[in-house]
Amino acid sequence: MNRYIAWIFTLGNEIVQGRILNTNAVFIGRRLTLLGFQVIGIISLIDDVDIVAKFIAMILREKPRIIVSTGGLGPTHDDKTLEAIAKAVNKKLVLNEKAFEMIKDRYTSLGYELTEERIKMAYLPENAIPIPNSIGSAPGSWLEIEETIIISLPGVPKEMEVMWDTWIEPRLKTLAPKTHIIEKIVSIEDIAEEIVAPLVKEAFKIFPDVYIKTHPKIDETGKKTLDIYIMYSHHDKDTAEEIARRVTETISERLVKRHNVKIIER
Amino acid sequence: MNRYIAWIFTLGNEIVQGRILNTNAVFIGRRLTLLGFQVIGIISLIDDVDIVAKFIAMILREKPRIIVSTGGLGPTHDDKTLEAIAKAVNKKLVLNEKAFEMIKDRYTSLGYELTEERIKMAYLPENAIPIPNSIGSAPGSWLEIEETIIISLPGVPKEMEVMWDTWIEPRLKTLAPKTHIIEKIVSIEDIAEEIVAPLVKEAFKIFPDVYIKTHPKIDETGKKTLDIYIMYSHHDKDTAEEIARRVTETISERLVKRHNVKIIER
Repeated sequence: MNRYIAWIFTLGNEIVQGRILNTNAVFIGRRLTLLGFQVIGIISLIDDVDIVAKFIAMILREKPRIIVSTGGLGPTHDDKTLEAIAKAVNKKLVLNEKAFEMIKDRYTSLGYELTEERIKMAYLPENAIPIPNSIGSAPGSWLEIEETIIISLPGVPKEMEVMWDTWIEPRLKTLAPKTHIIEKIVSIEDIAEEIVAPLVKEAFKIFPDVYIKTHPKIDETGKKTLDIYIMYSHHDKDTAEEIARRVTETISERLVKRHNVKIIER
Repeated sequence: MNRYIAWIFTLGNEIVQGRILNTNAVFIGRRLTLLGFQVIGIISLIDDVDIVAKFIAMILREKPRIIVSTGGLGPTHDDKTLEAIAKAVNKKLVLNEKAFEMIKDRYTSLGYELTEERIKMAYLPENAIPIPNSIGSAPGSWLEIEETIIISLPGVPKEMEVMWDTWIEPRLKTLAPKTHIIEKIVSIEDIAEEIVAPLVKEAFKIFPDVYIKTHPKIDETGKKTLDIYIMYSHHDKDTAEEIARRVTETISERLVKRHNVKIIER
C-alpha cells in the first residue's frame, strides 16, 4: 500500500559537492511527514539528465504517491530537471500556455524582454500543470502519472517555500491521511544509548504503535546528550496528544528512577 | 571510467523526516570533491535493511570507486547499516576480533560491562577492516568489494568527522587523482541569471575545461544576489591557480563593462 509513500529529489552539483547545506530537504521532509506521508528517501544528484531520468524512473516504478523535486528549473543551460522528468515518464516537453503567460507577465512587469532563455522556463512535460512562483521566475510543475504526482519546484529556498505554503500544501492536505502527528523529545545528560535501550524496548511493548528512537549528540563544546524522540499519530488529535504524553511520562519516570538521570527541559 | 566516482549514503529516519540538517552530507561531499573524486549522488534512506541493501547493491553495480555511508552503526535495534551492507554484498556479519578489542578497551576504560548491545557493534561484514572511533563507541567499517571501497561511519557528526580526518582522508589521498582544485566565486548584486548566461557561455568557449555555474540567492531580508561559481582542477597547482584567476577576472571585467554591476567582495 503506497498511498502515502513519498520520495524527495534535491538536484544540483552544489548539493552533492557539499557546497551548500540542503535546507530544501529538511523543509520538504518535515512538511510531508507532518502531513502524514511517509518519506522513504531523499536523493540528491548531479545536474545530469540521464542520471536524474534513470533515478526518477526507478522510483516511479515503486508507485509512490508523491515525488517532489527541487532545483534545475531555471533559465540556464544546466537547468534540466523537467527534461529529465519528461524523459523518465516518456513524454515530451511542450510550451505550456499558462506557464508562458506567467513568465510573460513577470518580465513585462519588470520591463524586460522575453528572451529564448526565459521562454525555456515555460516548457513543461505534456499535461503538467504550472505552479505559480510569486517571488521568482521559474514556474513549478505538477504532473500526474498514474497514481504518482511528480511535483517539481525551484531550488532557491525562498521561492520553493512560498510555493509550498501557498500552492502545494493546500492541495496535498486533501490527499494526506486524516491523522494528527504528535512529537515529543526527552533529552537527558550524557548516558549511553544502549543503557536506555532496554527501557525503550519496554515502552515499545506497552505502546507498540509509537515510534521511539534514541539520538546521541555531541555539541561544539564536546558535551554529550541523548535525545529520545517519540512520535505518535492518530486520527483523533486528543488521543494522539494523550498517548504521546503517556509514553513521554513513562519513559521519563523510569529513566529518573532507574538511572538517576536529569531530564533536560527544552 | 569510474576510478574517481563516489556515492554517499546518509542513513536515518531523522534525516528523511527533515528533523535534522544533513551536515554529514556537506562534510563528506566537500571532502571527496576537494580530494578530486566526483560525487554523483547523496542518498538518504529510512532505517530499513531491505531498502538500504537494495540501494547499496544498485549503486555497487555502477562500480564506483567509493561508497561512504553514515549512520546506523550504534548499539540499538534500529542500527542496521552493516546488516544492510552485508546483505547487499552477499556476505555474513561476523564478530570482528579487532573491532571487539576496540569496544572492549573502550568500555573497560569507562568502567562499564560488555553487554550484548555493545558487542553487537563489533559485528562487521566478513573481511571488513574496523575503523577506530576515538570519541565514540561504534567502530567504522572499511570493506573492499572488487573495485569499490565501502566506508561506513557513525552518524554522530563529531565522531564521523574525527574518523574522517585521522583515518579516512590519509588513505583516500593515496587513491585520489593527483590534482589541485581551485574554486572562486564572483558575487554580484541583483541581476537575473539569464542576463549573465551569454557571458558565461563566452567564458566556456575561452576556457572549455573550467566548470562555471550561476546560483541565484535570496537572503532573509529578501535581498537578491547572484553567485557565479568557478572551479578548475589541474595536476599543477600554479597552473590551476592561474587559470581560475584568469576566468574570474575575465568574467568580472566583462560583467562590469557590459552590465555595469558591482562585484561584491567576499
